Amino acid sequence: MRDLSKDKALLSINTATVKQWSLEQVIEGCARHGIGGIAPWRDKLHECGVEKAAKLIKQHGLQVSGLCRGGMFTAADAAGRQKAIEENRRCVDEAVALGAKCLVLVVGGIPAGSKDIVDARQQVRDGIAALLPYARANNMPLAIEPLHPMYAADRACVNTLRQANDICDALGDGVGVAVDIYHLWWDPELEAQIRRAGRRVLAFHVCDWLVPTADLLLDRGMMGDGVIDIPRIRGWVEATGFTGQCEVEIFSANNWWKKDGDEVLRTCIARHQSVV
Amino acid sequence: MRDLSKDKALLSINTATVKQWSLEQVIEGCARHGIGGIAPWRDKLHECGVEKAAKLIKQHGLQVSGLCRGGMFTAADAAGRQKAIEENRRCVDEAVALGAKCLVLVVGGIPAGSKDIVDARQQVRDGIAALLPYARANNMPLAIEPLHPMYAADRACVNTLRQANDICDALGDGVGVAVDIYHLWWDPELEAQIRRAGRRVLAFHVCDWLVPTADLLLDRGMMGDGVIDIPRIRGWVEATGFTGQCEVEIFSANNWWKKDGDEVLRTCIARHQSVV
Repeated sequence: MRDLSKDKALLSINTATVKQWSLEQVIEGCARHGIGGIAPWRDKLHECGVEKAAKLIKQHGLQVSGLCRGGMFTAADAAGRQKAIEENRRCVDEAVALGAKCLVLVVGGIPAGSKDIVDARQQVRDGIAALLPYARANNMPLAIEPLHPMYAADRACVNTLRQANDICDALGDGVGVAVDIYHLWWDPELEAQIRRAGRRVLAFHVCDWLVPTADLLLDRGMMGDGVIDIPRIRGWVEATGFTGQCEVEIFSANNWWKKDGDEVLRTCIARHQSVV
Repeated sequence: MRDLSKDKALLSINTATVKQWSLEQVIEGCARHGIGGIAPWRDKLHECGVEKAAKLIKQHGLQVSGLCRGGMFTAADAAGRQKAIEENRRCVDEAVALGAKCLVLVVGGIPAGSKDIVDARQQVRDGIAALLPYARANNMPLAIEPLHPMYAADRACVNTLRQANDICDALGDGVGVAVDIYHLWWDPELEAQIRRAGRRVLAFHVCDWLVPTADLLLDRGMMGDGVIDIPRIRGWVEATGFTGQCEVEIFSANNWWKKDGDEVLRTCIARHQSVV
């Protein structure tokens, strides 16, 4: 088993964690602090430019633990769903250009005007199936990220690792899962479903669940500041043979986004070593 | 199958829905509008006095679809857990005094200082087991209410109907479940777990999930204003043979709690008939 918690080379910073920085700043910051990986969001990537970003990331010796994000497969009509698949192909291209370990998929919620979550889930499965040949042809693994049930309506109708594993079983090679403890920590089946995912665990995202949580989206905690038993979940992930990085993804409008980026990175490193 | 959606006699108003009113006002309001049931929270009940409330409810011919709430079994030490069981016995007494159909259990979250949700869940099971003989002796059914996973840390670590059913299986007669669509609508297993619960469905709570949801606790929607396919879930509940009332429980600090109570009740009646 690989111990994900002690080595800065096994730490990756999702650009959302230091939203106050540009992608160039995150790249340079990670390199400056000896952090081994980065996970760009596409908005930051496009601001920088894909080619330039790929070059900078390579120059600084960083791994890309994942590209955030593809997905959003659900739509009110077939044209919207087709457009989503085309956009996802561009995501695959960008992930390839960056040498990313996977393309993270936030699958989409219930289309506007609909109350049919069952149909939305079918749309997701169909969308991933439609994208998969292109992803396989480009050797880019797709990582389905189940999101917390509080995002079922508007962001992702895949809300448990069991659902994501079921899709993987149905679709076969080239698709796996992203385990984000913020979304999954509460699930009584989590240990069993991580074991079931096995080698299909393509990404491991950490932060913490704060009590109280002030906002549904933008009040995630730094590891150690909340109630998640992170080492226990890390152990389950390591037991699958996962060899990737531990990616820190914290949305925190009123705390970490207001701090100096270097302080955020120093804290990520310290907490990675002490509480992950 | 009983159609829960057309008859005001099968509608019940949880006092939290008209927080702007005292219990006396809710009782009189329900009677005035021809609503058949009420579900008091204990704070309102204590303000009124249990004996007086029981008398008023009987005078006005209302059923009590449930008493909100017992539970909160988790605590940092054994003394705290014992205190919780004693408090729950008082809840049973009050539920009996009101002639309630069940005592609703919001089971409690992770104790302060702990990060061990597995242990918290064991504490809940142990707590219900300790309460059960008293509840059985008083013929008061206990209804475990799974709460949305976003409340796992601070309110209830039973977050799926599967978990609640598992506890019922383990503990036997006298304990069932409360199905609240706000907490459970997202669950891919919901239909199967309602079927599994069968006659153990003791309460059916409705409101709606708003998009966006502005607050984790106090921004529930009126039926029809959100994304939940209520008739579909109602059908699953009816198919179990559930013969209770449809209880409206809406926490809404910035909308329904600011309106005139009569308008809220009129809206509940109209939506019960049109979208539930």
